[in-house]
Amino acid sequence: MRIARFTTGDEPRYAIVQQEGDRTFLAVLTGDPLYMPTTPTGERLELGDGVRLLAPVIPRSKVVAVGKNYADHAAEMGGDVPSSPLLFFKPNTAVCGPDDPIVLPDFSQEVSYEAELALVVGRVTKDVSPERALDHILGYTVANDVTARDAQRTDGQWARAKGFDSSCPLGPWIETELDAEDVAVRSRVNGEPRQDGRTRDLVFDIPFLVSYISEAFTLLPGDVILTGTPAGVGLIDHGDRVECEVEGIGVLSNPVVRRDPSL
Amino acid sequence: MRIARFTTGDEPRYAIVQQEGDRTFLAVLTGDPLYMPTTPTGERLELGDGVRLLAPVIPRSKVVAVGKNYADHAAEMGGDVPSSPLLFFKPNTAVCGPDDPIVLPDFSQEVSYEAELALVVGRVTKDVSPERALDHILGYTVANDVTARDAQRTDGQWARAKGFDSSCPLGPWIETELDAEDVAVRSRVNGEPRQDGRTRDLVFDIPFLVSYISEAFTLLPGDVILTGTPAGVGLIDHGDRVECEVEGIGVLSNPVVRRDPSL
Repeated sequence: MRIARFTTGDEPRYAIVQQEGDRTFLAVLTGDPLYMPTTPTGERLELGDGVRLLAPVIPRSKVVAVGKNYADHAAEMGGDVPSSPLLFFKPNTAVCGPDDPIVLPDFSQEVSYEAELALVVGRVTKDVSPERALDHILGYTVANDVTARDAQRTDGQWARAKGFDSSCPLGPWIETELDAEDVAVRSRVNGEPRQDGRTRDLVFDIPFLVSYISEAFTLLPGDVILTGTPAGVGLIDHGDRVECEVEGIGVLSNPVVRRDPSL
Repeated sequence: MRIARFTTGDEPRYAIVQQEGDRTFLAVLTGDPLYMPTTPTGERLELGDGVRLLAPVIPRSKVVAVGKNYADHAAEMGGDVPSSPLLFFKPNTAVCGPDDPIVLPDFSQEVSYEAELALVVGRVTKDVSPERALDHILGYTVANDVTARDAQRTDGQWARAKGFDSSCPLGPWIETELDAEDVAVRSRVNGEPRQDGRTRDLVFDIPFLVSYISEAFTLLPGDVILTGTPAGVGLIDHGDRVECEVEGIGVLSNPVVRRDPSL
């Protein structure tokens, strides 16, 4: 099942995604399936004019992300694979949705895309074992862990570099039935292929990550975990369009803009 | 004015604090003053049996904290003062309140207190100038930026070390009328003085910090900014009680526990 969050210009609503050939329909739901039981309202809309997807979830607490979790990406960044998961936070104010602009921050001249598989937490999770970890995951979506490389180098801590507004595009929807053990994670800039990895190459696998993270932090429904990015990262600039794709989920596409392109 | 969040065993409510000698009374408010206009309900309770203070705010988005923002603390940590504010996040799941236990995480054998002045954001804030920054602050409270020093050293990024559950005690209330330019920031462990600094020694002052932070992240009402800790940090262990105090606000006191004290 694919759960989408969308707007027709007013309050966000949720829907089940129904694909019919090239056309995408939304079977509208009552309420918010991340926090309550929902049922179809009977209303059905076609995605397109005036019906726009939003980030499938805005976490009430946090995005927990994992750095250097593919060996080939750790190598291209000039580092080794860490001996335990390298965790950092992105705040919920960094989250944006499909087709929302990635706004390059004024403090950076060197912003990179990072395509990632994202997990959406389904229930309150603390000290869960790897064996039970997947029971706590509602589903999967695609993330772009947008990163200001210059600030990442100079700041030491990555809060500004990876937490600025619009640095966490999520979407296009939550796929609840994915087997995430070995799916492709890809990115393209202006249609040109950049990253092409597979989740079987994750240094720390998904059940371990969820367990490890839940030892430190209580995870709340709607919290999101980014699982790391494969090799092939590179810079984006004003006017680009970046697509991130996870096999079995879909494509998350965002334009890149700078508020003052003369910077 | 002092705004407290409290419980009598059921849902959290807000109140204005009224001191009468040694006795503390709570004039109960309608609703939540961080997000809506409120008025007194007329109910008045005395703090004590069955009337317990809570963290004065649970951020809907983030706690943004500033590292090494007192020169004497940067020196005791073996480092220099950074050339720009060193920002990191604590998630809202780290927040606890007055007298709530600081639960030492199983992954650490070396947990430290850090007394800090905390700012509570009053309205949506993005790209505010230093001159206008204080208009966006609702008030001030006391924070303990509890830190797992061993994880801080080994992890590189400080998410686990400074973001674990109960690593962000806040309280006892929000003081809206403080002149925060030169107030004492102190801590005690089991009654013994440990830290005794003054906010006039902040490396980056409050208006600059708010402005700098708001260039990277949209701040939401209820978001909290921790301004850094002065020299005198040290370890705490199971059975200790740590008090953090900011002159003109009050004392935030928390017991320290380990779930399995044999660890």
